[in-house]
Parts: sequence; structure tokens; C-alpha cells
Amino acid sequence: MSVLTTDQQPGNAQTVAPELQRLRSSIDNIDAALIHLLAERFKCTQEVGRFKAKHRLPPADPQREAAQIERLRALAKAANLDPDFAEKFLNFIVKEVIRHHEAMQSE
Amino acid sequence: MSVLTTDQQPGNAQTVAPELQRLRSSIDNIDAALIHLLAERFKCTQEVGRFKAKHRLPPADPQREAAQIERLRALAKAANLDPDFAEKFLNFIVKEVIRHHEAMQSE
Repeated sequence: MSVLTTDQQPGNAQTVAPELQRLRSSIDNIDAALIHLLAERFKCTQEVGRFKAKHRLPPADPQREAAQIERLRALAKAANLDPDFAEKFLNFIVKEVIRHHEAMQSE
Repeated sequence: MSVLTTDQQPGNAQTVAPELQRLRSSIDNIDAALIHLLAERFKCTQEVGRFKAKHRLPPADPQREAAQIERLRALAKAANLDPDFAEKFLNFIVKEVIRHHEAMQSE
């Protein structure tokens, strides 16, 4: 069932209005894309973690993080997305990255 | 500066190792894609909100949400992403969607 959109699942098709079904199917497609991009992003940050560990660089880089936040806020504004949400989103992801790096260090 | 990756910003290029720069540039590209997908996703959920308000449907749909979680966990597993993180991610987004719907209702 993993690759079906949720409205393609048995029992749902008859009870959901076509308009709602169409929107949900787009949301499901976007969510699949988001999950795959996040998987790819964590591959990159894991490589960054390995590189920093090997070269004894500090895990955090406040200047880089400030630049990332400013850039994502600008991209969000241009895409008509709440810049505060974009910043919260980056913080949410970075928290997970730190969790990964800590797990890597303790291995 | 908004569309430059952060390592393309003045003053950063000389101080960052090329390997780290390459990884960060990929992370910046992925982040731009994530932001644009999120913007598109919120367009869809705003339409869902309008549709539900118009047809007096309840804002939450626990059956749909359970199916979404199960599907995203399966997609995450297949993409080698922590399924718990995928679930946390969906909850994070859904919280924002609810905030939007509440703002829409109070308008």
C-alpha cells in the first residue's frame, strides 16, 4: 500500500468528494516528494558530519546557519510562504541533524 | 542574495573546504526545493480548508490522517529515512495547517 495515495486505498474512494480527492492526491504526491528530498538532505548532512569529524571542525557553524535562515526566509517570501514558518522548518530539520551527529559521535 | 546558495555569498568562498562547499551547495539546492514544495502544499491545504468550510465538513479527519502517517512511514523506510522522523515531520506540517485553518475561520 505504500506507494498508493491515501485516497486510492480501498474503502476511501466512494466516501470522499471528487474535489477533495483531487486535492488530497496532490498533497500525497507532494508529501512523497518531500520525504525523498529529506532523505537526500540527510545523506548530505551525514557526509558533512563525517567530514567535520575527520577534520576536527566544530559541529555548529553559526555564520552558516544565519545565512541559511536569511536565504530560506527570502525564498519563502518569494513563494508566498510564511517566512516564520520557513525558519521554524529549518530549525526543525537542524534539530534532527544534530540528533544524527550526536548519534554518530556516540557510535 | 536570496537565490544564491549560502557558500556563494561574499566572504565565505575562501574559508570553506571545497568538499564541505560542495555538500552545502547540495543542501541549499534541496532546501530551496523543499520550500517551494511546502508553498505548493499549503496552497492545496488552503483549498481543502475552503472546501471543508463551504461544505461544513469537520476540519480534522482522523482516518485520513492515520492513512497519511502509515503511508509516509512506508515511503520513509524505502528511502532509508527514519520513519519516526517522517511521522514527526507530518505532525509538524499538520500543526501549521491547523493554524492556517483557524486563522481562516477567524477572518
